[in-house]
Amino acid sequence: QIREAVVQRLSEGPLQGVKVVLTAGPTREAIDPVRFISNRSSGKMGYALAGALRALGAQVTLLSGPTNLPAPPGVTRIEIETAEQLLEQSLAAARIADVFIGAAAVADYRVEAPATEKIKKNEAKMAISLARNPDIIAQVREAYPQLFIVGFAAETEKLEEHALGKLKRKKLDMIAANWVGNGRAFDRDENALSVYWHGGAQELAQADKTRIARELAALIAQRYAAKKS
Amino acid sequence: QIREAVVQRLSEGPLQGVKVVLTAGPTREAIDPVRFISNRSSGKMGYALAGALRALGAQVTLLSGPTNLPAPPGVTRIEIETAEQLLEQSLAAARIADVFIGAAAVADYRVEAPATEKIKKNEAKMAISLARNPDIIAQVREAYPQLFIVGFAAETEKLEEHALGKLKRKKLDMIAANWVGNGRAFDRDENALSVYWHGGAQELAQADKTRIARELAALIAQRYAAKKS
Repeated sequence: QIREAVVQRLSEGPLQGVKVVLTAGPTREAIDPVRFISNRSSGKMGYALAGALRALGAQVTLLSGPTNLPAPPGVTRIEIETAEQLLEQSLAAARIADVFIGAAAVADYRVEAPATEKIKKNEAKMAISLARNPDIIAQVREAYPQLFIVGFAAETEKLEEHALGKLKRKKLDMIAANWVGNGRAFDRDENALSVYWHGGAQELAQADKTRIARELAALIAQRYAAKKS
Repeated sequence: QIREAVVQRLSEGPLQGVKVVLTAGPTREAIDPVRFISNRSSGKMGYALAGALRALGAQVTLLSGPTNLPAPPGVTRIEIETAEQLLEQSLAAARIADVFIGAAAVADYRVEAPATEKIKKNEAKMAISLARNPDIIAQVREAYPQLFIVGFAAETEKLEEHALGKLKRKKLDMIAANWVGNGRAFDRDENALSVYWHGGAQELAQADKTRIARELAALIAQRYAAKKS
């Protein structure tokens, strides 16, 4: 009852009635039934953002790759494993959404022909052929031109250049960029973000991910309202 | 004080004074600072076995790849990420050990030349060149001919044939084999094992991993005592 009361109160925030679809965590691309390619995303930033958007009143659907995190209270979670599964769920969920946020660290490549049995290690060398995965955020944009779309960029070099390139090329409304590698961001509890939109930018200084998520959620609410007005 | 008393009592079990080195969990092989190759091992079976061996009085050193599991009480844990790190730690720890158990799901291949910056996704197709990783259990056997060594085999086909081949080829004292793939064993709480040694075999029927671990630990204690006598 207390929780219901809280949820009730929360649903009066600036995103009250706004439907948000948010992707989070890594994807896994099978090499064979046992081995896979993945990445160091823990999902913490995406999950924190889902919780922060919920706290502003949004109805949040979280499309999540494999993580060890509990779903934030009041958020609907759908679990996926591969980029292709995430694309399918994203296109379906975004159909009735107002805001789409691509925070998942989607594998850029999948294994071209995954083996159905475990590959035996007979060879000293081996090569895995990879094929480009679908670009989820670009396909969501193409399918839903009116949607307010927020992308993420994780870079090890040229952060601003890569982020601004992605903002324009993919016709995003906003992009949140952060440095990764050498122990930065991935699997950590702290993060710093550079947020860009058409005609504006804001730095969210290094802080724990819960706080950064609250600041980013407020910025999303602000820019979403500005676009609608 | 209660825990100390329990540990005291436990250290009077059949493996009292026996030094065990046990590897567990997956390894991760970097593609670039963000992406890696890994496998579906959760580490649950290895961690449960470490706890069960400790409960029989053994001094257990657990060499663990990335998992989300707490170290079992009374067990010394050393964390590793790659197969090469695991080899180095295994050879160092096994030097003073009586028993070596290779329960880790070691990546058979590593990426030949990991990128130092995040690879940009410019190409529609890509290939990753892989090189065979060191065979840890074979190198431990070569370095320490007297050690009692237990291997694991996870197979999607021809379980007994593959397990017996590995037992002989790698000069193991015992091998524990299980089926994987199609939702079997990996990341589950239950498991079934077929255990083989020279001149014997035993089936450990499907049960939760804690129970299977207790049965396997008892079998290891029995075969270790038989070899010494």
